[in-house]
Amino acid sequence: MKATKEQEAFMQEAIRLALDNIKTGNGGPFGAVIVKNGIIIGRGSNSVTSENDPTAHAEVMAIREACKNLSNFQLDGCELYTSCEPCPMCLGAIYWARPSRVYFAATREMAAEAGFDDSYIYNQIPLQPHERDIPTNHLKLDDAFTVFDEWVLSEKKIPY
Amino acid sequence: MKATKEQEAFMQEAIRLALDNIKTGNGGPFGAVIVKNGIIIGRGSNSVTSENDPTAHAEVMAIREACKNLSNFQLDGCELYTSCEPCPMCLGAIYWARPSRVYFAATREMAAEAGFDDSYIYNQIPLQPHERDIPTNHLKLDDAFTVFDEWVLSEKKIPY
Repeated sequence: MKATKEQEAFMQEAIRLALDNIKTGNGGPFGAVIVKNGIIIGRGSNSVTSENDPTAHAEVMAIREACKNLSNFQLDGCELYTSCEPCPMCLGAIYWARPSRVYFAATREMAAEAGFDDSYIYNQIPLQPHERDIPTNHLKLDDAFTVFDEWVLSEKKIPY
Repeated sequence: MKATKEQEAFMQEAIRLALDNIKTGNGGPFGAVIVKNGIIIGRGSNSVTSENDPTAHAEVMAIREACKNLSNFQLDGCELYTSCEPCPMCLGAIYWARPSRVYFAATREMAAEAGFDDSYIYNQIPLQPHERDIPTNHLKLDDAFTVFDEWVLSEKKIPY
């Protein structure tokens, strides 16, 4: 879709964060912002290599910052602008945070051309655990379900 | 598979973290540990509600801590023990962190029975962006690919 002026301005901020990130050597060429009621409430830049955190993608960083600022673990009524189509991890994070809408600029195909190919991870996730390249084993322990029984009984639990 | 004594001990630690998490009200009933050369180098408990961070699942927290302790954004030669089969976000995080093996105790079906049903997110991720329930739009901007050109030319970049 063609961007409105406002949408373009928010996306340009996400792209500026991505460009800054390259210049400073902070991490990969990705930036993201979270917007609520026309105001940016969270910014994120890929910080994987500088923070030694493989989960520190731009979208995850922006979600974390916006949630801190809202004192909430949900992003109701928020929009996420990201310089590039989210990877599967970030998509998962988006579904847990539940913003109302996502906009991206570069496509996954453009990212793949630049060496950031997410198709491998997209292909691995739907596989059954034992079929995945990272061997994933079910250890059968009697206590595995006890945890959920305790959760159901707990009076301290906060559903999320 | 049936657990060895060592595997069982590590998984019991992950389960202990999950049980503690319920008792303290810190978050959901999930725990995880990362093991390298027979030693636990990272622990994580679901902290979504206490930290207002929707990405603070046990596996993500354990990955972050282990990476900090290793001063590395990769978990080569490490094993992840998690009290429950990872959700798609955590699977993505696992593929970015690249441990050599994953063990889980409760299955996704057990988790669904207790109200933690990941199947919705598993079903959303493979969809094309415009088909998803959270509307995801491609904003076509001329600058979208410029970022990758800058990355390719950058002398500061650290591939990950």
